[in-house]
Amino acid sequence: MNDDSTGASRGGRPPGGPLRDRFADEPHAVMERINASIGFDRRLYAHDIEASRAHCDMLVARRIIPEADGREILKGLDKIEEEIASGAFAFSPALEDIHMHVEARLTELVGDAGGRLHTARSRNDQVATDLRLWVRDAIDETRAALASLQETLLTRAGEHAATIMPGFTHLQSAQPVTLGHHLLAYFEMFDRDRSRLADCRRRLNRCPLGSGALAGTSIPIDRDMTAEALGFDGPTANSMDAVSDRDFAVEFLACLSLVAVHLSRIAEEIVLWSTAQFGFVSLPDALATGSSMMPQKRNPDAAELVRGKAGRVVGALNALLILLKGLPLTYSKDMQEDKEPVFDAADSVSLCVAAVTAMVADMTVHAAAMEDAAGRGHATATDLAEWLVKELSMPFREAHRTTARIVRLADSKGVAIGDLSLDEMRGIEPGIAAEAIDALGVRDSVSSRASHGGAAPERVRRAVDEARRRLAET
Amino acid sequence: MNDDSTGASRGGRPPGGPLRDRFADEPHAVMERINASIGFDRRLYAHDIEASRAHCDMLVARRIIPEADGREILKGLDKIEEEIASGAFAFSPALEDIHMHVEARLTELVGDAGGRLHTARSRNDQVATDLRLWVRDAIDETRAALASLQETLLTRAGEHAATIMPGFTHLQSAQPVTLGHHLLAYFEMFDRDRSRLADCRRRLNRCPLGSGALAGTSIPIDRDMTAEALGFDGPTANSMDAVSDRDFAVEFLACLSLVAVHLSRIAEEIVLWSTAQFGFVSLPDALATGSSMMPQKRNPDAAELVRGKAGRVVGALNALLILLKGLPLTYSKDMQEDKEPVFDAADSVSLCVAAVTAMVADMTVHAAAMEDAAGRGHATATDLAEWLVKELSMPFREAHRTTARIVRLADSKGVAIGDLSLDEMRGIEPGIAAEAIDALGVRDSVSSRASHGGAAPERVRRAVDEARRRLAET
Amino acid sequence: MNDDSTGASRGGRPPGGPLRDRFADEPHAVMERINASIGFDRRLYAHDIEASRAHCDMLVARRIIPEADGREILKGLDKIEEEIASGAFAFSPALEDIHMHVEARLTELVGDAGGRLHTARSRNDQVATDLRLWVRDAIDETRAALASLQETLLTRAGEHAATIMPGFTHLQSAQPVTLGHHLLAYFEMFDRDRSRLADCRRRLNRCPLGSGALAGTSIPIDRDMTAEALGFDGPTANSMDAVSDRDFAVEFLACLSLVAVHLSRIAEEIVLWSTAQFGFVSLPDALATGSSMMPQKRNPDAAELVRGKAGRVVGALNALLILLKGLPLTYSKDMQEDKEPVFDAADSVSLCVAAVTAMVADMTVHAAAMEDAAGRGHATATDLAEWLVKELSMPFREAHRTTARIVRLADSKGVAIGDLSLDEMRGIEPGIAAEAIDALGVRDSVSSRASHGGAAPERVRRAVDEARRRLAET
Amino acid sequence: MNDDSTGASRGGRPPGGPLRDRFADEPHAVMERINASIGFDRRLYAHDIEASRAHCDMLVARRIIPEADGREILKGLDKIEEEIASGAFAFSPALEDIHMHVEARLTELVGDAGGRLHTARSRNDQVATDLRLWVRDAIDETRAALASLQETLLTRAGEHAATIMPGFTHLQSAQPVTLGHHLLAYFEMFDRDRSRLADCRRRLNRCPLGSGALAGTSIPIDRDMTAEALGFDGPTANSMDAVSDRDFAVEFLACLSLVAVHLSRIAEEIVLWSTAQFGFVSLPDALATGSSMMPQKRNPDAAELVRGKAGRVVGALNALLILLKGLPLTYSKDMQEDKEPVFDAADSVSLCVAAVTAMVADMTVHAAAMEDAAGRGHATATDLAEWLVKELSMPFREAHRTTARIVRLADSKGVAIGDLSLDEMRGIEPGIAAEAIDALGVRDSVSSRASHGGAAPERVRRAVDEARRRLAET
Repeated sequence: MNDDSTGASRGGRPPGGPLRDRFADEPHAVMERINASIGFDRRLYAHDIEASRAHCDMLVARRIIPEADGREILKGLDKIEEEIASGAFAFSPALEDIHMHVEARLTELVGDAGGRLHTARSRNDQVATDLRLWVRDAIDETRAALASLQETLLTRAGEHAATIMPGFTHLQSAQPVTLGHHLLAYFEMFDRDRSRLADCRRRLNRCPLGSGALAGTSIPIDRDMTAEALGFDGPTANSMDAVSDRDFAVEFLACLSLVAVHLSRIAEEIVLWSTAQFGFVSLPDALATGSSMMPQKRNPDAAELVRGKAGRVVGALNALLILLKGLPLTYSKDMQEDKEPVFDAADSVSLCVAAVTAMVADMTVHAAAMEDAAGRGHATATDLAEWLVKELSMPFREAHRTTARIVRLADSKGVAIGDLSLDEMRGIEPGIAAEAIDALGVRDSVSSRASHGGAAPERVRRAVDEARRRLAET
Repeated sequence: MNDDSTGASRGGRPPGGPLRDRFADEPHAVMERINASIGFDRRLYAHDIEASRAHCDMLVARRIIPEADGREILKGLDKIEEEIASGAFAFSPALEDIHMHVEARLTELVGDAGGRLHTARSRNDQVATDLRLWVRDAIDETRAALASLQETLLTRAGEHAATIMPGFTHLQSAQPVTLGHHLLAYFEMFDRDRSRLADCRRRLNRCPLGSGALAGTSIPIDRDMTAEALGFDGPTANSMDAVSDRDFAVEFLACLSLVAVHLSRIAEEIVLWSTAQFGFVSLPDALATGSSMMPQKRNPDAAELVRGKAGRVVGALNALLILLKGLPLTYSKDMQEDKEPVFDAADSVSLCVAAVTAMVADMTVHAAAMEDAAGRGHATATDLAEWLVKELSMPFREAHRTTARIVRLADSKGVAIGDLSLDEMRGIEPGIAAEAIDALGVRDSVSSRASHGGAAPERVRRAVDEARRRLAET
Repeated sequence: MNDDSTGASRGGRPPGGPLRDRFADEPHAVMERINASIGFDRRLYAHDIEASRAHCDMLVARRIIPEADGREILKGLDKIEEEIASGAFAFSPALEDIHMHVEARLTELVGDAGGRLHTARSRNDQVATDLRLWVRDAIDETRAALASLQETLLTRAGEHAATIMPGFTHLQSAQPVTLGHHLLAYFEMFDRDRSRLADCRRRLNRCPLGSGALAGTSIPIDRDMTAEALGFDGPTANSMDAVSDRDFAVEFLACLSLVAVHLSRIAEEIVLWSTAQFGFVSLPDALATGSSMMPQKRNPDAAELVRGKAGRVVGALNALLILLKGLPLTYSKDMQEDKEPVFDAADSVSLCVAAVTAMVADMTVHAAAMEDAAGRGHATATDLAEWLVKELSMPFREAHRTTARIVRLADSKGVAIGDLSLDEMRGIEPGIAAEAIDALGVRDSVSSRASHGGAAPERVRRAVDEARRRLAET
Repeated sequence: MNDDSTGASRGGRPPGGPLRDRFADEPHAVMERINASIGFDRRLYAHDIEASRAHCDMLVARRIIPEADGREILKGLDKIEEEIASGAFAFSPALEDIHMHVEARLTELVGDAGGRLHTARSRNDQVATDLRLWVRDAIDETRAALASLQETLLTRAGEHAATIMPGFTHLQSAQPVTLGHHLLAYFEMFDRDRSRLADCRRRLNRCPLGSGALAGTSIPIDRDMTAEALGFDGPTANSMDAVSDRDFAVEFLACLSLVAVHLSRIAEEIVLWSTAQFGFVSLPDALATGSSMMPQKRNPDAAELVRGKAGRVVGALNALLILLKGLPLTYSKDMQEDKEPVFDAADSVSLCVAAVTAMVADMTVHAAAMEDAAGRGHATATDLAEWLVKELSMPFREAHRTTARIVRLADSKGVAIGDLSLDEMRGIEPGIAAEAIDALGVRDSVSSRASHGGAAPERVRRAVDEARRRLAET
């Protein structure tokens, strides 16, 4: 997978492959098994070929290889791309990695010209380029999928801008909010995720091609040309860094880890909300599953899997950081282990975003159950305390204390604070007026939270509009 | 994969599969993609079938199902095992997991009798059983592979019981040791690994089968019988724990993480030792690789990959711990994500043990270079200090100080301490005798370290014998 | 912290400390800050002194140091232990670590005799010994704390052997169980934890003392004697392994990680169960907390913190594995970073076990709410399916299907399956008899799950007795 | 630590503290131990007071509290800040966290006015604000420290723009490079690190204050005013997200993890280069350490500790991700565990950057040893292959093969390829001319690698200038 190592192919020449002319013996069986990366790096084929095309064009433009050879190479690469895409291409562990597979097949197809493509290039800068291209595409796809999830959140938030539900802290009912407000919290998380991915993309968008094995080349190449052809903002600045650097992969996995954590949080809520105990939402049949033993079951498997997959994404980030820790410069073969965690995490997140989007879009909201729950647990006690501050100019800490005493009184009578009589309340604080009790209703409570970023329905509606604008722009 | 969830098969009955009679709609496309585990859990097929056989025999013995049906089921299971082993079996994501695949095919093959096999059983206890069986086999294989690596270490340690090399602390030459002594350090590590795996095996060896979905069953089964048939020491004690428990998988991954760390340490040493700078060993051609750009390269790729793969094994452990954290009882679908890290870590370690065994067995040792290096860097200064203690009864701290002054004198003259004249030494400590200087030779130095577990060749030879005995016993 | 490195003390001798006689310059400011471990390793003081006593006794017994010096040393060590325990001891970063602090103070107290204590010893084997002793004690304390938690679980399980509650899979009501059965699941987890810790203890119980810096010593010590004095089962077998080995610390952290995961699971359940929505338990005031803003709040903070601390324990395990990965033999200074994760994880787990014990002991169980919830969601549908198997000899898969149709019928009528009339049921399956409907009650359902490890109250009572016996034995 | 939980203070009022009026009993002993965060969150005191000042000014400006009270509060806060800074402040676990400590002391100092400060504020938005302010400062400090390390790298790279050394891949000599080029690779890594931290800072720079416990407030506050006063770019958009969000802490730890990995790589190289075997650099006495047993040792402890500390930084990132995984909205007490990993990682990285800066600045470079090593191992074989391409128009793959044969010939004669005679080379490839052999010198080889980002001294000098420009700008 890396530039400069291979246990490689048998080709015509015994023993070993195209890169084993320096050796007397062919590779040990275990060597081939541990060394071959073709099982997973074939996934880079399109990017590998794209980079080879750009490299070939540059070699021709700089007259490093003959124009006719360049034409042959490009035709060969087209053919190979087609063969791989259609499944007609024959892979072999002996040829080790995608780079050697393409080169070997190219030489079969176009003869000696194929042997010119690797001029001024090493597998070290080649794979660094391929993987950047792959990650760049994966970033674009992840950002698009997140944007679509955000749109879904906005749609549902708009529908439920005034649907009352309990807001929780410590999973205890804290203050009434609206479902719209709750869903917008996730909009913000995924918005930061998209922003982080955009930064990652900008930072990775430098082209390693031309860094050679580690130190550049004596061949008079034009790195700006290949960089531009591949959509990079320019070549990387230091060849040794370029072939050793997997920061972009780590940063991508760190971004995905946060996406996965956000997804795990909404998944946890879907699991909770669809319990019999909460009863806030139902998943449709199409998103629920049954049991092999228990005939009545309707399980939120997709939400649980989303939650569980967070572990594997964080595991992938961790694996890559461990791999890189303490590696001296430049390329070491350890770095071949960079691809599988990247692929696996990208696939996992892609699947999870799709699953969460479907669940958010299609879950049935039980608004009455939510509103009913919002009224329980003295959830508007803070409103009473704030009333005491606003109307009686009571210091907040005293208002908090006074309200706590009223809560204890209500508890001792087994009623909600809103069900205490005015007299009972006045027994604790004589200044309490009838309007204070009105303020204890959940709708009034929510509507009053009109500070910037607050839960009031009117605020939520404006927040949805504002969010829609931001989404369109970024 | 789990007991009680499925988006499952289409069979004949629209919509959905055998477990969707409770639902009106068929599964969402993303549901099937995220839910299906057949892509990886097919690997459990032999264990799944083994457990089904034991379950069937018990159902017959307890007269829960008719003997004739039992015979049909066993025949069907044989056929299915053969089909899967030969590649003739058709897998489909719609049938979700290995359990439903086997059951569905069984029903095709033997009709209604097939529908009786799932009596008193759930996928929850089934998969818990299958995975234990799989891990148990993986433990046995890992222990055998480690034993073989240990034997290789003993062989080489025996050959090199008297091959002098520098012992390092902080990668600085510290005191001369022998290569045999050094290799035996790894024998100890892998011996602890085998011991840990044996403990893990003993602890996991309880049979969950019969725990049902989570709470046992009202059918009068015989759990001791199935447990015994499957080689377990008995049934698990609590059904809710049994279906929620993945401790054995975590413990297995923790054991493998330590194996991987040990392998990464010897791999690091092979990388170091085969540099031009150290020059202590060479890997044979069959275990070295070339470069696509640099024609002269001989790279220790296998060692680097072993070192790098430690990251992924630790990542797998981490992923599983994250997955389990905070899960309420009992089975949650998150737990379907337990298999891939287990499989991946077991495969990785298996490959790495084989690679390290090959490298240790086949590396060429450059004994002269090692011995030469052992003499540099005043590596016997401690011997001088200990001589001062033994012969002059000097307190060790003073002997240390005196020797340090001699080292500085040698440094200032640009010579080794052994090359100082007796007079020069006596200028610092008049009691120093000629024998002290003799003690500064690396061979004398090593031979003197004859304390239990020490580096003296005679000790090492005895240690090899002793180790061989322990290996035979455990 | 390690044997053979120090930027150490100023003592009387400029520049630098007792171990800097080899150097011309004193340490850089950043060197002292990064190098000093006394900030955390002072915690090892009692074990360090204990090991020094054993070492001293052995040196005297082997006549390596004079008896009189030995007596002085022991007196000095007693004094130092007292000074540290009482807070009178003066620590200084310049003296770097606990070993040098003790040695330096000893020399102040008893003069030259103090300089003899370090004969045939290095900080490398010393710290390896100290940390083993510390971890051994921590294991004993953790096991005792877990046993106490297990007793608490048994007490509550005994009280609630017949308290009906819903058993969950996927957090959906699955089948009725009892609270006693549920709590016993945790007994099993913590039992495995204790067993794992016992294995860890057995494996670590070998004494590194006498391994020297890495290679043993030429001084004729008696390693068996020190090993025995310190309660070890014998000396370690290989000196290079002994000073490089932190397996015991990793294994200890792996054990603690599983403990932390188990604690996080019961903590999650306490959080869930004490929500208004579940209402299964209440924490007493003494274990609940209030809010600075919301006067009514009662939060289960301790449970949340237990859940959250799982992250830091797993983080500690991960940190130590990363640290060790790829380290060549023998001691490298990286290993000084082993202590803080071990201390932090042990402290965290100790606090969490205490918190969970208090919560399990003191939480108020709302049995009526639990039983009420157990009856919802067609939780006894599996009993109906098993009735069809047992009484009508229906293949289970068909019984599952039939029951699912009955569930859908009940859903369409908005009733529980137990509330359907016999005729309605017979419309789907004519063989259904009146007793089948009786079986749908939650008490009957639970009582019928009498298979080994099952949820039936009688089973649970026996399981409590059996568990009590096991706890007494191990 | 969090908004809405406390086991808090005893004050005058039994039982419990200011927030326990709702409770009948005082907290359990274990509750206080697990709940109190003052042991670590006191570190936020300056930021907590800064945020309180801004909040107070806003409350006054909006006439929510009287101007006179505002003045009292500000005076009280000044006094408290002074008390804490000077060590005169008394902390107590009963007061739980820094917020309650400041508020309680404020009320002691200024009476009822102190009780007004918490109006329209919760500990949930307060701690979210404090931690952002702390992380923002930590980012600024880390970026400044990295810039200083980068300057040091540039200084040394400038000095050694033409100092030849071997460039390694797989730790095998690959091609000659210069030390300047090698050091510039690290400049690039740390430059990306600074860029990542800048992005993190920009993203975190929104103010949560005013989000209340989770849902905003009914008090007519001005969030823009507090945001501006605290140097934020504006308020956060959603109150529920604002109190639940720790993305900025995760992102900060992800950035630090990459910094730590980069530091571990250069530390590994310093460890390697200062071995006797490499002998490329020496650390000065002030950065080396001795041994308690071995009098001759000079150990690179600081470099090893830098390498080892990477584990703890990655462990901290991992811990925080685990903590957040699966948490429902909004604030849960688990999140109190966010601070220690952040503090620990920031401290560790700060120390490591300082240590690496000192080592890079002060290490002595042994240029002759480096250049000597650069010539070994046929390191210029690639130059010969490129010569064949450039001068003989040979396809690169054939040139590679031809050169490999020449390497084998040299090996078989035990000489370097540059020492083969022209005739010997021509025996393999007749077209080889005398200039080809000239190209095999390491100086020619390096100078020829003049492609963008390449190792040629002239390139390196320009790269240093260019890097200096970039550093000045960002």
